[in-house]
Amino acid sequence: MYAITIPEPGGPEALVWDEVPDPVPGEGEVLVEVVASAVNRADILQRQGHYNPPPGASAYPGLECSGRIVEIGDGVSGWSVGDEVCALLAGGGYAQKVAVPAGQLLPVPAGVDLRQAAALPEVACTVWSNVFMIAHLHPGETLLVHGGSSGIGTMAVQLGKAIGARVAVTAGTKEKLDFCAELGADILVNYRDQDFVAEVRQATDGAGADVILDNMGASYLERNVQALAVNGRLAIIGMQGGVKGELNLGVLLGKRAAITATSLRARPLTEKATVVAAVREHVWPLIEGGRVRPVVDRELPMSEAAEAQRLVEASGHIGKVLLVAP
Amino acid sequence: MYAITIPEPGGPEALVWDEVPDPVPGEGEVLVEVVASAVNRADILQRQGHYNPPPGASAYPGLECSGRIVEIGDGVSGWSVGDEVCALLAGGGYAQKVAVPAGQLLPVPAGVDLRQAAALPEVACTVWSNVFMIAHLHPGETLLVHGGSSGIGTMAVQLGKAIGARVAVTAGTKEKLDFCAELGADILVNYRDQDFVAEVRQATDGAGADVILDNMGASYLERNVQALAVNGRLAIIGMQGGVKGELNLGVLLGKRAAITATSLRARPLTEKATVVAAVREHVWPLIEGGRVRPVVDRELPMSEAAEAQRLVEASGHIGKVLLVAP
Repeated sequence: MYAITIPEPGGPEALVWDEVPDPVPGEGEVLVEVVASAVNRADILQRQGHYNPPPGASAYPGLECSGRIVEIGDGVSGWSVGDEVCALLAGGGYAQKVAVPAGQLLPVPAGVDLRQAAALPEVACTVWSNVFMIAHLHPGETLLVHGGSSGIGTMAVQLGKAIGARVAVTAGTKEKLDFCAELGADILVNYRDQDFVAEVRQATDGAGADVILDNMGASYLERNVQALAVNGRLAIIGMQGGVKGELNLGVLLGKRAAITATSLRARPLTEKATVVAAVREHVWPLIEGGRVRPVVDRELPMSEAAEAQRLVEASGHIGKVLLVAP
Repeated sequence: MYAITIPEPGGPEALVWDEVPDPVPGEGEVLVEVVASAVNRADILQRQGHYNPPPGASAYPGLECSGRIVEIGDGVSGWSVGDEVCALLAGGGYAQKVAVPAGQLLPVPAGVDLRQAAALPEVACTVWSNVFMIAHLHPGETLLVHGGSSGIGTMAVQLGKAIGARVAVTAGTKEKLDFCAELGADILVNYRDQDFVAEVRQATDGAGADVILDNMGASYLERNVQALAVNGRLAIIGMQGGVKGELNLGVLLGKRAAITATSLRARPLTEKATVVAAVREHVWPLIEGGRVRPVVDRELPMSEAAEAQRLVEASGHIGKVLLVAP
């Protein structure tokens, strides 16, 4: 098969479409013939040499895919050759085939195109596990989503609205904010010329956000804590704004607030399977009912992964950028 | 009645035993004739002018007491005049009488002296709400308790052991560590000449602590995050080591860890009542069964509150310092 390899870490040109051996499904795994994968920021860190695959994972990038099952490993039940699926991966999605632990498989939701289903696993699992399983967003609460027009952001806005929360977003252009509004976002903040702390407080009668989903890390830490409501929960899933920040524990304690930081990729198989099962139970019906949909900016041939990553790095996109396998 | 008043914030001498009007129980409150109260660090901050009572609370210090109900306000059921109780207070324990919301009353546990029961409410509610209701300590996990010989610490050690956790403590003298060992602590760290990160890692095969109960705040923040295990939870309840600290979100995210900071005093009545009810359900049977006991360093007359606070500030005590009402 062909896959995107990374002979040497570096810029987008470090991604090389090359012929490699087919993966072999191990015990508890299936082999999926990939129809599409999608670009995640973690793939870019991996390309740069900053985020190596966890032990046992594929060396190729790609944290999610859609496709068809072509082989069933030992000890797998409930799935058959020919099933159309999408999957959460620890790596290897930028390839024509990938071996997937059965616990990370999801059926393609009814009404969703097989290619577009590649846009779902990573964002659905990340948002559900953080905003709902960890931060326990409740109906009537306010959710602040940074980067509201990103793949993660568009899923968080839709899920927040679907469960009856009020949703605030930050984004950097009017076009992106308009798109968030179409998805249902109630409070729109252009981070280039507005202060999200002031805007969120004003829109909540001074209360602040009950849950914040943050991809910036250090550069937003102080203001995120300021923007939290009493009993607020800050869920950090990315560190695009740096790793080390000052934390004012007095403010945190005064609000009886919580900060969590998580990633999906390094979790043990059992934890990933728990998240995937919860997503299938709670998110899939919302997609099949038309309340939540994959948001795809564009599709590129998988061999053009370098160009796709350039697009994501430039942050001009809305939703996900897909890579379609040949 | 007489109460400890604070005419002007300052050193221990700022505490003045003075005649004041009796409190009047409001709707949903009872009047308790105080037998004993206990010193908490928050009382010292209040004396210094750094921690004002929340709106509606007594102006006198004292976050807990034991005593007898002498009057029942409107809308209170389940309690009678003459009942021996202890109570979580938002203030006013350093007095001969105090009005208490009924949801913050607890019966004196069978087998516990009425005076000594004053040592229980604040530590039981703080430890149960943080270590169990928020951080969800499970049997078999490792709990690290900073200040293991303090009032909070001695309760945390006992509750941790009672539910089947492994317990590590830090303290500053051999005498204090020996006492923690008597209470069941498994891992003893003298913070004056040992590094708790290294000691806890070594004692857990490198894994670290699943839950940390911390009273130091900023000065321990970095090392606490280092000492956490994967999926670890850091519960901050005090800031004796400062308010602002550097947080390495990369380490936090790599461990998928959580930081919470809470206080009891400012919580709404309904939340306090929830905590008190949980303590009555889960902690009281452990006390009545002899698995957990109040730890009292000494008892002083309430009029000598200044001396009692000096003792607590000097940190030579083990467990609680009680104030006995005349």
